[in-house]
Amino acid sequence: MTRIEAEQTEQHPFDVDTDVDPVSDGRFVAELSDRWNALGGVVNGGYYVAVGLQALRRVLDHRDPLVVSTFFSRPARPGAVEIHTEVARQGRRVSTGEARILQRGKELVRLTATFADLAVAEGDLSLTEPPQLPPPDDAIDPVGVRSFPGVTMTDQVEYRFASVPGWRTGQPSGDPSAEFWMRFKHRREADTLSLPMLVDAAAPVVLDLAGVTGSVTLEMTTHVRRRPAPGWLACRVATRHLAGGYHEEDFDIWDSTGALVTQSRQLALLL
Amino acid sequence: MTRIEAEQTEQHPFDVDTDVDPVSDGRFVAELSDRWNALGGVVNGGYYVAVGLQALRRVLDHRDPLVVSTFFSRPARPGAVEIHTEVARQGRRVSTGEARILQRGKELVRLTATFADLAVAEGDLSLTEPPQLPPPDDAIDPVGVRSFPGVTMTDQVEYRFASVPGWRTGQPSGDPSAEFWMRFKHRREADTLSLPMLVDAAAPVVLDLAGVTGSVTLEMTTHVRRRPAPGWLACRVATRHLAGGYHEEDFDIWDSTGALVTQSRQLALLL
Repeated sequence: MTRIEAEQTEQHPFDVDTDVDPVSDGRFVAELSDRWNALGGVVNGGYYVAVGLQALRRVLDHRDPLVVSTFFSRPARPGAVEIHTEVARQGRRVSTGEARILQRGKELVRLTATFADLAVAEGDLSLTEPPQLPPPDDAIDPVGVRSFPGVTMTDQVEYRFASVPGWRTGQPSGDPSAEFWMRFKHRREADTLSLPMLVDAAAPVVLDLAGVTGSVTLEMTTHVRRRPAPGWLACRVATRHLAGGYHEEDFDIWDSTGALVTQSRQLALLL
Repeated sequence: MTRIEAEQTEQHPFDVDTDVDPVSDGRFVAELSDRWNALGGVVNGGYYVAVGLQALRRVLDHRDPLVVSTFFSRPARPGAVEIHTEVARQGRRVSTGEARILQRGKELVRLTATFADLAVAEGDLSLTEPPQLPPPDDAIDPVGVRSFPGVTMTDQVEYRFASVPGWRTGQPSGDPSAEFWMRFKHRREADTLSLPMLVDAAAPVVLDLAGVTGSVTLEMTTHVRRRPAPGWLACRVATRHLAGGYHEEDFDIWDSTGALVTQSRQLALLL
C-alpha cells in the first residue's frame, strides 16, 4: 500500500508483524513478534515462513507464492532477525528464490519458493469435496472451551469446530484428523501470502493420539492453488502414518466459495 | 562399498549413473546419463535428484534421506554437471544440507534435504491401506503393450498394472489416478536413496485426462518413511486438483511387506 493508505488504515497484526526492511542487496531485517506463539509458547513456524515470503516477494517478479518449502533448523524467539534472500531464477511465468532467516547469527530456517501470478487461477478440476461443516455461527469455538497458557496465535486467528477436539479436554479421540473453520480475527481476509502461515496455525492433529504431547516440524511444503475469496476458510487436516517417531500432516484449505486454495504437507518429529 | 567389493560385483546402472566425484570442499562433478530419459526424451528429474542426494550424503552425518524438496529451474541434458553442496546443520538425530546442480554454469535444480538414520523405523501407525493389486506375475507390463520413442527409463525400471492405463493406447480414462507395481530391472533392490527417484519414475497420471499431453514439474517434496524390504513396490498415484494450469501429483509407495516407505507430492505445470 502507499504511504497515504498506510496512514489512513490501521494495519492488521499480520501485516505489521511480517513487515521486512531492506538493508542491502537482497538482505532484510525484521522483528519477530510474540503475537503468534503456538502450544508451548514457541514462535509459530508458519509465521516466520510468512516473514521470509515477504522478503522474497520484494526480490522476485511475481506476486503470489505458488509453492514454498521450508526446512526448520532451530526454534525462533521473539526479537530481531535477518533475512538473506537470493534469486534462483526469474522466468516469464514463475520466479524462484531462497530466503534464510537468521537470529543472533544462527540459521533458523531456509525456505525456497516459486512465485507466480494467480490472478487467473480458474478451477479446471477438483476431485476432492470440501469439508462438510455446520455454518460457523452454529459451530463451536474451541478456544472458548479451553485455552492454553502461552498461546497467543488464538488472539489473531479464530476457529470453529463441529465438535471440540478430544485432546483439548484431555480425552484424545484416537483419530488424528480434524475439519474446522478458520479465519483471521480483526477483519483481515486471507490472501496468498498468509495461507502458508494459516496451514500451520492450528494445533497438530497427532495430539488426538493417546500419549502424544507435541511435535516439531522438520519440513513443510505448501502449494497455494488460488487467491482465496473473502470469508471463513474450511480446513481438513490429517496424519496417516507414524513411523520411527516421524509423522506427516496434510493440511488442505477451501475458501468460502468451496474452491481449494492451498494444500500443505509437513514432516514432523514426535516429542 | 569397498574397492574390493566394487571389483567383485557389477554395479547397477543406478549406482553407476548417480556416482559423484569430489573435486573440492563440498563440490562434486558427475555425468548425467541418457539411461533415465522420460517421455519426450528428457532426462528424468527424479534421476538427478538422486545425483544431488549422493553428493549430500557425502557431506552429511546421516545415511538416509528423510525429506527432500527440489525446485526445478531448467531441463537437464545428458552430460557433465557440477554439484555444489552446503551443510545447513549437523544435528544428533538429523542433518540438513542443500545441493545445487549446475550444467554449463546454469542452475538446473536446487534441492534441500534432511537426512536421518532410518534403521530403526518401526511402524507405529498406518491409517491408509496399500493398493490392492493382482500378484505381479498376473499383472500386465504396460511397456510390453506400447513403448514410447526416446524413453529409456523403462530399460531400468519395470511396471505391472492390473489394467493398461487408457492414455497408453490413446484412450484417456478421465481418471487421473493409478495403482501399479514397480521395481528396478537388473536385480537391484530399492533403498532410501533410490526412492526419491522412483516416485518420479512413472508417467504423470494427468495423461489420463483428455487433451493433456504432458506436464513439467516445478517442485517435488519426498518423505522417505522407512528402508524398503526387498521385492516389488506397490504404488498409488493421484492428481486431485487442477487450477490455473497447475496440478499436484501425490505418489505413495509401499514395500513388499505392505509398509508405507515413501510419500511424495509434486507441483507441476500442464503443457
